Amino acid sequence: MKIVFLGSGNVATHLAQSFKQAGQEVTQIWSKTEANARALAQTLGAVAITDLAELDIYADLYLIAVKDEAISDVAAALPKLAGVVAHTSGATSIDALQSPEHYGVFYPLQTFSKQKSIDLSDAPLCLEASDAKAMAVLQDAAKLISSASYPVDSEKRKLLHLSAVFACNFSNHLYQMGYSIMQQHGLDFEILKPLIMETARKVQNAVPFDVQTGPAVRGDEETMSKHLQLLEDRPDLQDIYKTLSESIKKTHL
Amino acid sequence: MKIVFLGSGNVATHLAQSFKQAGQEVTQIWSKTEANARALAQTLGAVAITDLAELDIYADLYLIAVKDEAISDVAAALPKLAGVVAHTSGATSIDALQSPEHYGVFYPLQTFSKQKSIDLSDAPLCLEASDAKAMAVLQDAAKLISSASYPVDSEKRKLLHLSAVFACNFSNHLYQMGYSIMQQHGLDFEILKPLIMETARKVQNAVPFDVQTGPAVRGDEETMSKHLQLLEDRPDLQDIYKTLSESIKKTHL
Repeated sequence: MKIVFLGSGNVATHLAQSFKQAGQEVTQIWSKTEANARALAQTLGAVAITDLAELDIYADLYLIAVKDEAISDVAAALPKLAGVVAHTSGATSIDALQSPEHYGVFYPLQTFSKQKSIDLSDAPLCLEASDAKAMAVLQDAAKLISSASYPVDSEKRKLLHLSAVFACNFSNHLYQMGYSIMQQHGLDFEILKPLIMETARKVQNAVPFDVQTGPAVRGDEETMSKHLQLLEDRPDLQDIYKTLSESIKKTHL
Repeated sequence: MKIVFLGSGNVATHLAQSFKQAGQEVTQIWSKTEANARALAQTLGAVAITDLAELDIYADLYLIAVKDEAISDVAAALPKLAGVVAHTSGATSIDALQSPEHYGVFYPLQTFSKQKSIDLSDAPLCLEASDAKAMAVLQDAAKLISSASYPVDSEKRKLLHLSAVFACNFSNHLYQMGYSIMQQHGLDFEILKPLIMETARKVQNAVPFDVQTGPAVRGDEETMSKHLQLLEDRPDLQDIYKTLSESIKKTHL
């Protein structure tokens, strides 16, 4: 498969490297900023371009991995293409594209950091397409780099993204709160790491509701009031402790 | 090492099985309820007892793994023992014991479920002791089943437990919220599982603050207000969304 990337950030980097490792041809990296296009293109043996007029019009797949607000502008500026044009955004509707003949969404539900190279082989790819041909190309591409792809339309993708904010972004913030309590009192965060892993591991084979533990689900008011006392100097954490404990109690009524 | 368990619940079961697998002698299981003592004793080739007068007074270690509120009563009812008596509770002070000559705390920071057998080999064991002899015995015992033990006094252990409520109990509840949004809209929770794992994995080698992602840390007000609209029929979730997003924004100011 011949693939062109529009964008050179985290998502473009990880996807392009995955396709390259899967033996596919990443022919061009386009970016507004030449240095960025070059930096990524070099690692892939691809050509860096900054002018959309230079776009290889014979690729099978054009993946737009730019900031959400720039997607429709990039799509509108593309020349006429026979291949499939897809964006990679969780929060953007498929309607942001429209002008290409065959288009869609190729959204990897995974968290990317520049530093850390990530194995995408079990990252779910959420696919949406304007027509059957586009879907077929996206599915073929998905199979090359991951064992899991799901058809998810734009409406559902928004809800999926929202669910991920709860389960992942917010969880990370709660890790940080645990970290900050421990640091404040000279406790080594290392002690907590295995429990964080096991908590995530547990819900791989269980409904989270069924494996909820802790004072709130036990209705252990004594421990909860002791915890609030321990947080006397941290009203911000007290607030969150109360909100989430109340929510656990209501959910498990 | 010759070990006696007082209690037959989740913690007693997992610890006793770990010691047995490490080639140690678990000689007796005491429980108020004979059937419970027997059920666990059978899996270990141990003797089930319900009367503390029958206690083997020549064991090296007596681990009390009963409900928090029963710990001091069980400890006070013990005959005079040369071995070390330790409770296994995160939330209970070492002072709940006192009557034995050598005593302490042997607290595994891990989440146990009856169904799931857990490898304790990387579970941190938090140790506290009345004296050097007790600490030496607890450290020897810890080394037999886990690669990580930490001296943690009662005051610090409370703070550790509180940190775990934030990082683990509350995170699990947020998984459940993600689950409930997905279920409500016919989305397969399977899609979210790899991201949950990766979120936990990321903080094994990074400070959570440094790997925070999502609309709140980006200050992406548009996405946040769209998310709140999507939750119009779930005021409970809206409330939590607002509280945690505000907290992320303040933390990253």
